[in-house]
Amino acid sequence: MAKMVARAEVMKEITEALLNAESLYIFPHMVADGDSMGSCASFCRLMRNLGKTADIMMEDEIADNLKFLDKGYVTFVDENTEVPQRDLCVALDCSNTDRFPKRNKMFFSAGKKTICIDHHVTEFNYADINLIAPDAASNTELLYELYEFMGVEIDKEMAEAIYTGIVTDTGNFQYTNTTKKTHIITAELYDRGIDTKQLNITLFQSVRPQKLMLRNTILNTLEMRCDNRVSMAYVTLDMYDSCDAKTSESDGINATLRDIKGVEMAVFLREKQPGEIKVGFRSKDYVNVSEVCLSLGGGGHKHAAGCTIYGNMEEALEIIRKVVDDVMAEYDAKRA
Amino acid sequence: MAKMVARAEVMKEITEALLNAESLYIFPHMVADGDSMGSCASFCRLMRNLGKTADIMMEDEIADNLKFLDKGYVTFVDENTEVPQRDLCVALDCSNTDRFPKRNKMFFSAGKKTICIDHHVTEFNYADINLIAPDAASNTELLYELYEFMGVEIDKEMAEAIYTGIVTDTGNFQYTNTTKKTHIITAELYDRGIDTKQLNITLFQSVRPQKLMLRNTILNTLEMRCDNRVSMAYVTLDMYDSCDAKTSESDGINATLRDIKGVEMAVFLREKQPGEIKVGFRSKDYVNVSEVCLSLGGGGHKHAAGCTIYGNMEEALEIIRKVVDDVMAEYDAKRA
Repeated sequence: MAKMVARAEVMKEITEALLNAESLYIFPHMVADGDSMGSCASFCRLMRNLGKTADIMMEDEIADNLKFLDKGYVTFVDENTEVPQRDLCVALDCSNTDRFPKRNKMFFSAGKKTICIDHHVTEFNYADINLIAPDAASNTELLYELYEFMGVEIDKEMAEAIYTGIVTDTGNFQYTNTTKKTHIITAELYDRGIDTKQLNITLFQSVRPQKLMLRNTILNTLEMRCDNRVSMAYVTLDMYDSCDAKTSESDGINATLRDIKGVEMAVFLREKQPGEIKVGFRSKDYVNVSEVCLSLGGGGHKHAAGCTIYGNMEEALEIIRKVVDDVMAEYDAKRA
Repeated sequence: MAKMVARAEVMKEITEALLNAESLYIFPHMVADGDSMGSCASFCRLMRNLGKTADIMMEDEIADNLKFLDKGYVTFVDENTEVPQRDLCVALDCSNTDRFPKRNKMFFSAGKKTICIDHHVTEFNYADINLIAPDAASNTELLYELYEFMGVEIDKEMAEAIYTGIVTDTGNFQYTNTTKKTHIITAELYDRGIDTKQLNITLFQSVRPQKLMLRNTILNTLEMRCDNRVSMAYVTLDMYDSCDAKTSESDGINATLRDIKGVEMAVFLREKQPGEIKVGFRSKDYVNVSEVCLSLGGGGHKHAAGCTIYGNMEEALEIIRKVVDDVMAEYDAKRA
């Protein structure tokens, strides 16, 4: 593991690398969320404002509600795409190299130097320069600090991309990652003339009716366990079909399950393909779901983690029921 | 209508009245929401901190998720309750006297002087001193300004009540009433040690499973009209019964209906009692639903308004279908 370096030192190193570069590639993580896309869009805009040749390289599609961030920045690639050499490859919001699987070779070979800027707890530093700040609520919050450090102008378009990262990664300032600084930075974004009305319509008020119906169908499978401290629900491929809904449209169900009164742990099972069930865990307060998922071959954070179970939905449900019952019994025993 | 007075002048007048008073009654509006309860709780706490005799007078129950705000402040009363005379009666977040119907007589007779502090557009000033600031996102935001003006200490308990008003009345900073100032004030609340984790669990992450099931049942009635620019849904008394849900648990459905992609106007019909249907309208951008509701004998704001229709649900649905079709046709004609 690289030695810890003071944040200002790393920011100085990154500033020099960016200002000296003429060209760069920018990498969001796969299935990019608002924070990763917002990070890349603000970064790409800044680099182009500074006269650099900059592009965002993606291996999968942009979510509908985030397409507005791509002002001609994105190039879609796969494992075999060959691109010309540039000065830098910059990964944003990618805690490890598994987050851009089809672009690993490109990231490590298409730039003379690599940079990683991320706000997740990371196990090891995979780039030449690594700016890691788990105290930042979103990666765009961290980038805002970097831009301030660099002394560059943050224009309206950059500010709207930064706002997008903040509001999506903090659940509209509800999650515990939100700090005083998050609100101060957001206040400053208003000075750049951001159109919060349009942003909120685009980001949150553009739910397809098919998604609503899918959510309804999923919530009909709601199962409460362990004295109503555990909520569970699932979705099968058939359910997506019958609602004419997209896979991504079951996103957010986990939060709904967790937000039930008295629920400490919420579990959502999603049939990814026949025989493969993705299981997402959320906890509200004291259960460490990262540990639960580690024991099932997965991983994550204390309050949000996941794993994969191979089998059909009924089998997966049976396994998970046993696991959650055991977990809650263990916590009860510890507290007794 | 009383003449307009500069805000600082009114704040000065209120400060003097409060500091000179020894005792007061505080009035939230009926069916108090987070902003009204947060206003009253922060205000009552401050007054007691300053050594005054202060109580919050209510005519209906406190919503479950807001009960934490009542630290022994609330007295429940009705039209006939007799109370001793005090120096002041203060109404918070009440845009007119219909907002406290069973406490009208008390408000106007139990205090030597009346004060109204509100952030809604009001038609006339009903109190002796009226601090009206429609630019404030929430009434607690306005109170924060008043407390700063007064130079009093805002302690943790007051800060948590203020935060409650802000996050509930801005839809977690999503609504267009949110401003730079809203975020700056929220940032300053963090300095008072507010426990945002616990507050957000209590306010938003404590949904009863019965409420989830009610929402599901309501969304099964979803009807899209006018090229999917209008969404409608309804709830009957039977539906509440079958879900074992409370009346208040259909709150928020309007926002869900409005948040559908492409929807400009959302309408939610609620059977209040047999033969009486409350209709809530929301708009996203250009439709002025206040005008729509005025024509139906109701009223409200541009983006949120309501009215009552007397008849059964089928009759009400037919009336509303015709109204929304006409409204959208009118807007189309204006734009053409």
